[in-house]
Amino acid sequence: MTLPTLSARSHRIQPFHVMALLARARELEAHGRDIVHMEIGEPDFPTAEPVRIAGEQALTQGHTGYLPAAGLPALRAAIAGHYRSRYGLAIDPGRILITPGASGALVVALAMLADPGRNVLLPDPGYPCNRNFVELVDAVPRAVRVDAGTDYQLTPGLAADACDDRTAAMLVGSPGNPTGTLASAADLQGLAALAQRRHIGLIVDEIYHGLHYGADPAQALEHAPDATVVNSFSKYFGMTGWRLGWMVVPRDWAPVAEKLMQNLFISASTPAQYAALACFDEKALEIFESRRAAFRQRRDFLLPALRSLGFHIPGDPAGAFYLYADVSSLCDDSFAFAEDLLEQAGVAVTPGLDFERTAPQRHLRFAYTTDTSRLAEALERIRGFLAAGS
Amino acid sequence: MTLPTLSARSHRIQPFHVMALLARARELEAHGRDIVHMEIGEPDFPTAEPVRIAGEQALTQGHTGYLPAAGLPALRAAIAGHYRSRYGLAIDPGRILITPGASGALVVALAMLADPGRNVLLPDPGYPCNRNFVELVDAVPRAVRVDAGTDYQLTPGLAADACDDRTAAMLVGSPGNPTGTLASAADLQGLAALAQRRHIGLIVDEIYHGLHYGADPAQALEHAPDATVVNSFSKYFGMTGWRLGWMVVPRDWAPVAEKLMQNLFISASTPAQYAALACFDEKALEIFESRRAAFRQRRDFLLPALRSLGFHIPGDPAGAFYLYADVSSLCDDSFAFAEDLLEQAGVAVTPGLDFERTAPQRHLRFAYTTDTSRLAEALERIRGFLAAGS
Repeated sequence: MTLPTLSARSHRIQPFHVMALLARARELEAHGRDIVHMEIGEPDFPTAEPVRIAGEQALTQGHTGYLPAAGLPALRAAIAGHYRSRYGLAIDPGRILITPGASGALVVALAMLADPGRNVLLPDPGYPCNRNFVELVDAVPRAVRVDAGTDYQLTPGLAADACDDRTAAMLVGSPGNPTGTLASAADLQGLAALAQRRHIGLIVDEIYHGLHYGADPAQALEHAPDATVVNSFSKYFGMTGWRLGWMVVPRDWAPVAEKLMQNLFISASTPAQYAALACFDEKALEIFESRRAAFRQRRDFLLPALRSLGFHIPGDPAGAFYLYADVSSLCDDSFAFAEDLLEQAGVAVTPGLDFERTAPQRHLRFAYTTDTSRLAEALERIRGFLAAGS
Repeated sequence: MTLPTLSARSHRIQPFHVMALLARARELEAHGRDIVHMEIGEPDFPTAEPVRIAGEQALTQGHTGYLPAAGLPALRAAIAGHYRSRYGLAIDPGRILITPGASGALVVALAMLADPGRNVLLPDPGYPCNRNFVELVDAVPRAVRVDAGTDYQLTPGLAADACDDRTAAMLVGSPGNPTGTLASAADLQGLAALAQRRHIGLIVDEIYHGLHYGADPAQALEHAPDATVVNSFSKYFGMTGWRLGWMVVPRDWAPVAEKLMQNLFISASTPAQYAALACFDEKALEIFESRRAAFRQRRDFLLPALRSLGFHIPGDPAGAFYLYADVSSLCDDSFAFAEDLLEQAGVAVTPGLDFERTAPQRHLRFAYTTDTSRLAEALERIRGFLAAGS
C-alpha cells in the first residue's frame, strides 16, 4: 500500500550525522573494541545524590499526578531565588515557566514568536536542533556565519546586517554549543537594542550557564531584560534524562507561554520537578561546583594538548564542555577524518556537519564529558593516528 | 518598552476555559468550601505500587541519563508484547516510538503529516488540544460535527464529505474525550480505506484504550494497519505526571518520527521509561484491571442517576471516564450553568466550550475520576441545585 506524502518539513529536518558514527561506535564496542567517547553532549556524572534522593522521595510520597502547566509553584520560586542569589537579579516567579527540557522551552519560544515564512537568525556554527525548532513552525532558519573574530557569537553588527523585514527573532546560545564561547554583556545589550529597534524577538539559550571556567558569564536577564531566556536542569544541574528545563519570558507573555504549554505538554514531569527542588540546596550546589571544577581541569588539560597536535582552537573556550577545532591543516574532510579516527583509533568525535553550513568539512567538536585519564588515552590514540597518516 | 508582535498562532490557540473554573474552585476551597471535582481528566488513583517502586529502583540504579530518541529498547519490546498478548497483533518494535506523553506523539504525528495551510479533520466535539497541535504546525483544524447518531465518532461517510484536496490527515480518538464513545471496527476500516483512497494520514488516539466497560474496543492497528496510533501510560496505566506515551507508525516512517524526536525532545524521561517496564507485569495489570472495574462501577452508578436528573446522555458511553451530557433542557448556557453549579452547589464540571464549536452551550462533561461516595454527594448537590433553580 502507498503511504501518504509526508510534510515538507519532514524532509527539511535532518537527523544528526553523529548518530551514524555513534551506531558504528556501538558496533565496534559490541565486537570488543574500546572506544573513547568524545562525541557525547551529556555530563558523565550521574544525577547528584541529593537530587536523586529527592526524586525517590517524591515517588514514595505519591507525587505522580499532573502539575499546573506553568510548573510547580515552589520550583518557580526556587528558580527565582537562584537568579537572586547567583546573579543578584529579582525575577518575578510568574515569568518563569517549567518545561519538558530546554527542548520544550524552545518549541514554545519559537511557536510564540515565528509565523510561517518569517526568518530566525541563528549563529552558524550552532546547536543543530535550533534550526529544526524553527522548521517545526515553518519559519526559515537564517544561518549567520560567526567565527573566531567574534568568539563564535552573534554580534549586534552581524545580526543587524542579517535582519530584514521578515525577521521574527534571533536565537543565540551562551555558553555556546559547539564552541563553548560566551556572549559578552555588550553583545547582549546590543542584541536587545536591535530587537527593540526592529521589533523582533531575542531568545537566549543559557542551558550551559553555570559551566564556565573563567570570569562569570553575562546573564541575559541583566543585559537584555526582555529576552526570552531558555535554561535546563540537564547540564550544570546534571539531570539530563529527567527532561526538565525552564524559560523566563516577559511578564505579558507568561499567559501566552502557559496556554501553549497546557496544549502542547499538559505539564512537565512531576517527579522531576520535585527532584529539582533539591538542586538549590547547599549540598547539591557544592556537588555541582565540584563537577564544574572537574570540567575546568579537563578543559585545561585537553585544550593545549589538542593544539599541540595541530588542532586549531581559536580563543580560550570558557564554558560548556566542548572544544570546536579547525582541522583544515590536518585533513580535507572532517567527516571522513572522524570516521577514520573512530575505525582506526577508537576515538569518537562529532563532525562539523552537525553544527554548521559554512565550513563543516573544516571542523570537529570534542566533548570533554569523560574523565582525564580517558582524555589522555584519546590524545595518545589521536597522536598515533596522525603519525600513521602523515 | 514595546514587545515584538507574537505569532498569529499565539492568538489562535485558546486556553482551556475550564482553567478559570478550576482557579475559582481552588479559591473556594481556600476559603473552606468543599468542592466535588468532576472536571478533572486524570484518574484519582496514584501510580500503581509496582510501577512506582520500579521508578524508585531506576533512580537508585542511576538510570538518569539520556536514552535513545526512539526509546528504551526493552520498553518498545514490552509494548509490542502488549499488542501481542492483549490484541493478538504482531507489531514490529521498530514501529513503536516512546514519546513524552501522548502530547509528544501528537506533535510528531502532525509535524510529519501536515504542511501549513492544509487541513486536518477532527470530530467535534473532541479533545481540545488536538486542534492546537494542528495550529502549532499552521495547518487548519477542520471540525467535523459528530453527534449521537454516529456515537460521536467520525464515520467514513462524514469524513469523506469533509475531505478536500487540501486535507492532510484525520485525527480521531477511541475511546473519545469528552464523550467516552468507541470507534467501531467498521469505522476504522472505512477511515483507513478513505485515507488510502485520498492519500491522507489517519491518526488514531487510543490513550483511553484499556478503559472500556463493555465489549472489547476495536484496535486501530488491526483494522487500519497503516494508521499512526498514539497511546499513553497516563490513563489506563496510571502514570499521568510521569509524562510518557508512545506512537506506532508505518515502518517506513519510523526513521522520520525518530529524527523529529531527536530534534524536538532528545528523548522521553528515563526514570519514567524504566518505571513503565513494570506496567506489563502480572501484578501491575491486576491493579489496572481492578481500577477499570472501579471506573465501570462509577459509570454504572452515575449514568442513570444523571439521566434521572434530566441530563440527556445518548447511547451508553463505553470507555474513558467521561459522560458528555446535553443540558439544553436544563439551561440555555452550559458555561453559566457550570459557573453557578460551582458557586452554589460546589460541584466542578467542564463546559462544552472546551470541546466543541457547534453547540458548546448545550453540553457539559462529567468526569468520574472521583469515588462513588463523592459522586453520590455531587448528585445530591446537583439535585438540590436544580430544584432551587426551577
